[in-house]
Amino acid sequence: MTDSFFLPEPGDQLPRFAGVPSFMRLPHVPPGHPRFKDVQIGLVGVPWDGGTTNRPGARHGPRQVRDASTMIRRLHPVTGADPFGQTACADLGDVGPNPADVQDSLDRITAFYAELANAGIRPASVGGDHLTSLPILRALAQDGPLGLIHFDAHTDLYDSYFGGFRYTHGTPFRRAIEEGLLDPKRMVQIGIRGTGYDGEDIAFGRAAGVRIVTIEEFFDRGPDAVMAEARDIIGTGPVYGSFDIDFIDPAYAPGTGTPEIGGPSSFQAQQVIRALDGIDLVGFDLVEVSPPFDASGGTAYLAASLLFEWLCILSAAIRRT
Amino acid sequence: MTDSFFLPEPGDQLPRFAGVPSFMRLPHVPPGHPRFKDVQIGLVGVPWDGGTTNRPGARHGPRQVRDASTMIRRLHPVTGADPFGQTACADLGDVGPNPADVQDSLDRITAFYAELANAGIRPASVGGDHLTSLPILRALAQDGPLGLIHFDAHTDLYDSYFGGFRYTHGTPFRRAIEEGLLDPKRMVQIGIRGTGYDGEDIAFGRAAGVRIVTIEEFFDRGPDAVMAEARDIIGTGPVYGSFDIDFIDPAYAPGTGTPEIGGPSSFQAQQVIRALDGIDLVGFDLVEVSPPFDASGGTAYLAASLLFEWLCILSAAIRRT
Amino acid sequence: MTDSFFLPEPGDQLPRFAGVPSFMRLPHVPPGHPRFKDVQIGLVGVPWDGGTTNRPGARHGPRQVRDASTMIRRLHPVTGADPFGQTACADLGDVGPNPADVQDSLDRITAFYAELANAGIRPASVGGDHLTSLPILRALAQDGPLGLIHFDAHTDLYDSYFGGFRYTHGTPFRRAIEEGLLDPKRMVQIGIRGTGYDGEDIAFGRAAGVRIVTIEEFFDRGPDAVMAEARDIIGTGPVYGSFDIDFIDPAYAPGTGTPEIGGPSSFQAQQVIRALDGIDLVGFDLVEVSPPFDASGGTAYLAASLLFEWLCILSAAIRRT
Amino acid sequence: MTDSFFLPEPGDQLPRFAGVPSFMRLPHVPPGHPRFKDVQIGLVGVPWDGGTTNRPGARHGPRQVRDASTMIRRLHPVTGADPFGQTACADLGDVGPNPADVQDSLDRITAFYAELANAGIRPASVGGDHLTSLPILRALAQDGPLGLIHFDAHTDLYDSYFGGFRYTHGTPFRRAIEEGLLDPKRMVQIGIRGTGYDGEDIAFGRAAGVRIVTIEEFFDRGPDAVMAEARDIIGTGPVYGSFDIDFIDPAYAPGTGTPEIGGPSSFQAQQVIRALDGIDLVGFDLVEVSPPFDASGGTAYLAASLLFEWLCILSAAIRRT
Amino acid sequence: MTDSFFLPEPGDQLPRFAGVPSFMRLPHVPPGHPRFKDVQIGLVGVPWDGGTTNRPGARHGPRQVRDASTMIRRLHPVTGADPFGQTACADLGDVGPNPADVQDSLDRITAFYAELANAGIRPASVGGDHLTSLPILRALAQDGPLGLIHFDAHTDLYDSYFGGFRYTHGTPFRRAIEEGLLDPKRMVQIGIRGTGYDGEDIAFGRAAGVRIVTIEEFFDRGPDAVMAEARDIIGTGPVYGSFDIDFIDPAYAPGTGTPEIGGPSSFQAQQVIRALDGIDLVGFDLVEVSPPFDASGGTAYLAASLLFEWLCILSAAIRRT
Amino acid sequence: MTDSFFLPEPGDQLPRFAGVPSFMRLPHVPPGHPRFKDVQIGLVGVPWDGGTTNRPGARHGPRQVRDASTMIRRLHPVTGADPFGQTACADLGDVGPNPADVQDSLDRITAFYAELANAGIRPASVGGDHLTSLPILRALAQDGPLGLIHFDAHTDLYDSYFGGFRYTHGTPFRRAIEEGLLDPKRMVQIGIRGTGYDGEDIAFGRAAGVRIVTIEEFFDRGPDAVMAEARDIIGTGPVYGSFDIDFIDPAYAPGTGTPEIGGPSSFQAQQVIRALDGIDLVGFDLVEVSPPFDASGGTAYLAASLLFEWLCILSAAIRRT
Repeated sequence: MTDSFFLPEPGDQLPRFAGVPSFMRLPHVPPGHPRFKDVQIGLVGVPWDGGTTNRPGARHGPRQVRDASTMIRRLHPVTGADPFGQTACADLGDVGPNPADVQDSLDRITAFYAELANAGIRPASVGGDHLTSLPILRALAQDGPLGLIHFDAHTDLYDSYFGGFRYTHGTPFRRAIEEGLLDPKRMVQIGIRGTGYDGEDIAFGRAAGVRIVTIEEFFDRGPDAVMAEARDIIGTGPVYGSFDIDFIDPAYAPGTGTPEIGGPSSFQAQQVIRALDGIDLVGFDLVEVSPPFDASGGTAYLAASLLFEWLCILSAAIRRT
Repeated sequence: MTDSFFLPEPGDQLPRFAGVPSFMRLPHVPPGHPRFKDVQIGLVGVPWDGGTTNRPGARHGPRQVRDASTMIRRLHPVTGADPFGQTACADLGDVGPNPADVQDSLDRITAFYAELANAGIRPASVGGDHLTSLPILRALAQDGPLGLIHFDAHTDLYDSYFGGFRYTHGTPFRRAIEEGLLDPKRMVQIGIRGTGYDGEDIAFGRAAGVRIVTIEEFFDRGPDAVMAEARDIIGTGPVYGSFDIDFIDPAYAPGTGTPEIGGPSSFQAQQVIRALDGIDLVGFDLVEVSPPFDASGGTAYLAASLLFEWLCILSAAIRRT
Repeated sequence: MTDSFFLPEPGDQLPRFAGVPSFMRLPHVPPGHPRFKDVQIGLVGVPWDGGTTNRPGARHGPRQVRDASTMIRRLHPVTGADPFGQTACADLGDVGPNPADVQDSLDRITAFYAELANAGIRPASVGGDHLTSLPILRALAQDGPLGLIHFDAHTDLYDSYFGGFRYTHGTPFRRAIEEGLLDPKRMVQIGIRGTGYDGEDIAFGRAAGVRIVTIEEFFDRGPDAVMAEARDIIGTGPVYGSFDIDFIDPAYAPGTGTPEIGGPSSFQAQQVIRALDGIDLVGFDLVEVSPPFDASGGTAYLAASLLFEWLCILSAAIRRT
Repeated sequence: MTDSFFLPEPGDQLPRFAGVPSFMRLPHVPPGHPRFKDVQIGLVGVPWDGGTTNRPGARHGPRQVRDASTMIRRLHPVTGADPFGQTACADLGDVGPNPADVQDSLDRITAFYAELANAGIRPASVGGDHLTSLPILRALAQDGPLGLIHFDAHTDLYDSYFGGFRYTHGTPFRRAIEEGLLDPKRMVQIGIRGTGYDGEDIAFGRAAGVRIVTIEEFFDRGPDAVMAEARDIIGTGPVYGSFDIDFIDPAYAPGTGTPEIGGPSSFQAQQVIRALDGIDLVGFDLVEVSPPFDASGGTAYLAASLLFEWLCILSAAIRRT
Repeated sequence: MTDSFFLPEPGDQLPRFAGVPSFMRLPHVPPGHPRFKDVQIGLVGVPWDGGTTNRPGARHGPRQVRDASTMIRRLHPVTGADPFGQTACADLGDVGPNPADVQDSLDRITAFYAELANAGIRPASVGGDHLTSLPILRALAQDGPLGLIHFDAHTDLYDSYFGGFRYTHGTPFRRAIEEGLLDPKRMVQIGIRGTGYDGEDIAFGRAAGVRIVTIEEFFDRGPDAVMAEARDIIGTGPVYGSFDIDFIDPAYAPGTGTPEIGGPSSFQAQQVIRALDGIDLVGFDLVEVSPPFDASGGTAYLAASLLFEWLCILSAAIRRT
Repeated sequence: MTDSFFLPEPGDQLPRFAGVPSFMRLPHVPPGHPRFKDVQIGLVGVPWDGGTTNRPGARHGPRQVRDASTMIRRLHPVTGADPFGQTACADLGDVGPNPADVQDSLDRITAFYAELANAGIRPASVGGDHLTSLPILRALAQDGPLGLIHFDAHTDLYDSYFGGFRYTHGTPFRRAIEEGLLDPKRMVQIGIRGTGYDGEDIAFGRAAGVRIVTIEEFFDRGPDAVMAEARDIIGTGPVYGSFDIDFIDPAYAPGTGTPEIGGPSSFQAQQVIRALDGIDLVGFDLVEVSPPFDASGGTAYLAASLLFEWLCILSAAIRRT
């Protein structure tokens, strides 16, 4: 039965451009709030770009996505899914990073997500740069390595940067594999493209068993075939989802730090997320939205729209449990 | 025989960026002008966003489309059609809405278009928000309900808003059906997508006999098949055309009030308009261009380019009569 | 004693760019909230531009000002005032207008503010266009006409528009005088400039006893002399404050619908607000911030900074009671 | 007696954002129009940047200024002047340059203005880059050299560029002096500033008798004193006015090709133009508005506002004859 | 063996956003530099828009592309090609045009490229408008006419403009054919679209033997088939490549002077360049990037990415010799 | 005697918008270059924002300022100073920070500047955020504490952030005093304003002997009086200059991370720098230009113009030695 507390503020009572902008106009339920324990899906912002080695600004991502997300309505146009009516969703607020210290930020983020994990809340996160995924995985993978379905232009499997710096937005999944947070045999990366440094990241991934689907293969075989294979690989075990907005072509998503041309369209992005219906999604993040490079705000609106697609998958996973 | 009065100012005598910007550099022939009676296609701006419940700005649409339209040359690249040479086209100016009153605006617009209808001028309108279509249809459908070919991300078949307000940019076609201006059996809506409130709009439309083609069906079957079916449905009777710029993906058309991701490309937009050749088009509108959200002006240029495509269809319809 | 519930979230625990953006990072205490009765200053957004006859977009003002306001710290740099520590301030959320109907919106806004007035909360409002002031005054002036200190490029004393439409952003203070909400003998308008229609607005105002200070007089005599006179005119009775962002030169405040060149600087704007210390301010509004015309966001940041200045004046007025 | 044909379209019948945008919403009366002979002040666009050696785009100036100028109302706020009611003003359209050839453009422009001069129309021109002034002066100075009141950050008295190219936007007034179109003893240049090449331009000007007022002197003595001296120098003979938008600080006027920091405010710009009341102004131009560098459109609006100030001076000059 | 002098500055020693921005972070080796004679591929900027008859700004293209190009890494993602490691590439700087004179500019450019040709350096040029190609071809085709592979929305085969002006960005390839610099039988133009003046350009081209592939044919047959035919036509002789950024849809490339809707995606642009592998490319240009119309900088980044694709083709051609 | 090697590339041989953009079009002379030892003033970029706790982007400052600086010509308009002709100036390139580590960056920067100090080169630096000043001072103050002339809206004298993090852009001068790099008795801070946390920074500074001039005092006494006092305080000993672009009002300088309204104009900024003529300036930095927030590029152009003013002061100081 739907708990009306957890429903978004309806647009015919308060116009969609009005109100304090929480994610999807959901109630703001930070840890400590009396209804925190009832939340099933916790939307969390991670306003952090401390791992960014190129153009910064992802620290401003959560706020702009919140703003854009107030445009989203309740029902999925194809499946009719009603994630806010079917699952208790809430905006848990932002986890505060330390802009002046990477390690302190990693610890703060992991602590925040551990609290969610303990409360049985599945997280839907909006970054922040891609290093965000690492501290989240540290909190979520306490019972063993997870599978990963990962959409991105880059593998983020680099080893280090600048001669030994191991924590940047190019390294989270290398670290996560090393730390036993992810099972490389149940990892799929889709959309990889762009000029390379030396190919070591891809070589590492493939050696470890990660299935890497380049954009050329993606366009050649088509979203359906690629996603069918991905479903096979990730299987029925718990899976984490990670969606870098630079997966999509920069014509659709200019507001990001490290764009790569030659990417998919927004419709193809919807297709690949919808193809995940049925997996045991334990949480996901949507990262690398950088508002300062998003002249028209379209990237944030795209991110908010895809956030809804992901929420439908996560809501369905919860309802199956 | 071509009447040189009605030809656009040529770009090799006055550069395309020069001159007072009328639509397509056509002569400005407002009602009362001595040549008004000779006009066959009247281009009209409706600078109005009084029905907008979300992001405003469509009131600035006509002016920005006029500006962009001065880039358009004379001949269609595929068919060689020469609408300005083959039909007497003119910029009739803008119909002045009342920014402070919706009902007064509806009346002013209908009165203006009734004058065109009486003069036998077929209107090519640039909005303005989508409520614009209703007062135009009131003027054009005096001899009975028209068919409708409608490209849009939204059905605009909602019943009311805010508990009883019946005239917004989400309701024009519901009102038009109720008022007997449109024949729902001869209505086709293409491109429908995006999250929904409760699905009542689609249910109403389908119950009334409207053919609603979602974007998923559009991409699945392809423009050719969809348009062949649409041609069958609208048949040989008089048809009105309505093109909401948010039909197209926001990567191509960011300058609009209620974008929806996952839409067609600009080439696909050209394809669907070109597929209308041969229908008895009695007029059309192109709506929801909102310049304040169009950082680079590309939406207006897209709109101006599609305005030319529509003019070729309308010109051909006139030449067949 | 400071009630820590009402303190802004500190920037050294959660970075200023993080978190759900309420005004000044204050707690969100909508009517019905258990702490509502304890609020002394209620910050309210009025996301409405239904009275706008020129460029729209002020409906998006409150959200952008909320975003910018998270940059504001606690203490006034000159007086050391600490309004959040000295007075219970809260973000009451937005009053929802009806984008499709002016009269319904006027009624909704007055009803909302009547609730504040009844609770003894003094309102600090962020518009919205200038018609916003009228329904607020209807709620606040229940015990008799108020004085008005009004900074603006325009008098907003017009009678009607489009042949009889009496409720636009150019008419609020004419209506307020007619309705007995304002005492014209205790009204001061400062910064008036720009080309005129027919001067009837100024003639009306002066005939009624309103003190109108043109920008030429303002620059000639200087802020100190002008404000000393203004203080004399408004006297010791209850006064409402209204600040149109177009008071300031458009180089500082491009994001507004009807800019007028030749205005004051941001420092002069600070000076005139600071000169109000000691008046019996019963509430104020800050209106006409239109984000779609604010390419860099600077207008919203300016507005947020001046909102702080006004809050210090309002807080001091409360502490004197 | 006011000829209603020449009045701007009033904003309470057609909103200011509506309609085909002519300068100041005046009638469009190109040469050949039946009312051409009755025009007293002809507003002309010169969409040309063929003389620009730095950032281009001034070719788009006239159109953007036309757009912004529709915001301007009828009466001067200080003097009450009503130039459109007191003098027959019209938009004569644009003179078409040849974007591919400087000399051909110079000839086309002079020919156009000679037609105005012969018809007794005083031109109010909107550029275009500053080379625009030269061909206009060739048409206007047929009866002997004119005085010049010139506001600019640069002298535009350079001799040549790139080893011998004599016609650029840095040379018009050198050429005009050489050609006997201007009397250097009756020339005043105000606002000169910015880093220099070698100072030869200033040395030439001073040697020829031109009064050059640097920005430092302008700020030191103040607008009143400087303009009083300028009035003395230009005297009672015929004077041409030339206003480069880069006279004003780039905070106010970012949309220009060669900005120089440290300039006057918009109010000071109004002051210096208003101080010209009483001179025998035979025409003026307002140049170097470059829309591609004007992110918010504020430069064009500033230019339109100052265009009105200049029109008041020109109208008064005509009424005295 | 790789000469480390010619390697780009690596991003893990100096971040990619740091440093004086040369093309691809290559060494700056202007003519006269001691290593000039060792250069195999010379990257050259031609900051010139003197031939532009529409929106200007391409003069700023080289600098913005240099800036964006510092984001490009070393290896091609599909072929693994390492053009900077396999061929000596350098930034030769810009050839200085004369902004005030078209003919002088043509001569300066030809002289610069003749120096390259004499040194055996193959040029990779970044414009500048499309007239840039003509003076380059004059330098490169000294031993007889070249083939041409040309991607563009326009044929640039116009005869003249404004009644006789023969050197504009719409005429370079007409002139090149007339001057015997190109062999029309070995010319392929792909992507042609948009409204036309009179079709004379296409008629001329086809009569001369140029293979013109319209965008409709391109989308209908697909990139593979079109490029296979193009390869057949250009054959094994020396070929020049010319890529106008307006080949690509303006959603991907808004920063250009004469956009045409309905174009290919960025991925399709990559496909067609990659299909050129194996031709005897003697040089290429990438033109018509106009930064003032590129609100987010994405066009320059697209251009930089495609520049890398072209460099791989050129590098391979050199290695085969 | 002027060494022509060190002269900027002249604009009449290569247009100012052309060429690889070094600072002021000076030769690029990185450490190791044969002419490095002859450099007197080294222009250095520090593309780093690792200390930024608010809006990032200053890492992109040096590149955008380089681009804008190519507009600057040779001679000072008031003094006629010719710093490039009178002193050997060169662009030394950027010192590469480590975006992923603050401490490593501090060390890298100090090492780079130590090399300059050893070579007797006085540095003119472009940041970067304000933490940049600390590692520079560590290199320059090897012979004892320096004086400081500091223009800024903020004191940057905070102690720590986030409970103990001591190296942010709000703390450099606290650290520098603690480390004995600056003599607080010879420190002047001008322009301080904006809301405060707790006033501890100002209390610390005043207790230590720093002269802090608030913006209110600055406007009240005027630039001349304030700078005369500042000259007295810094005296004749060696002084470092630090100019935060947020000293200036955000209308003039929107492109910065932490703007504060109510600041000086660009002309006043020129005045205060010019008033430094005669001091023993050992180097300076110009920091906090953040291009992602600078919609029109005006902030970078302002910074480049002020960079020239500072270079004139530094050049004069060198010539006096």
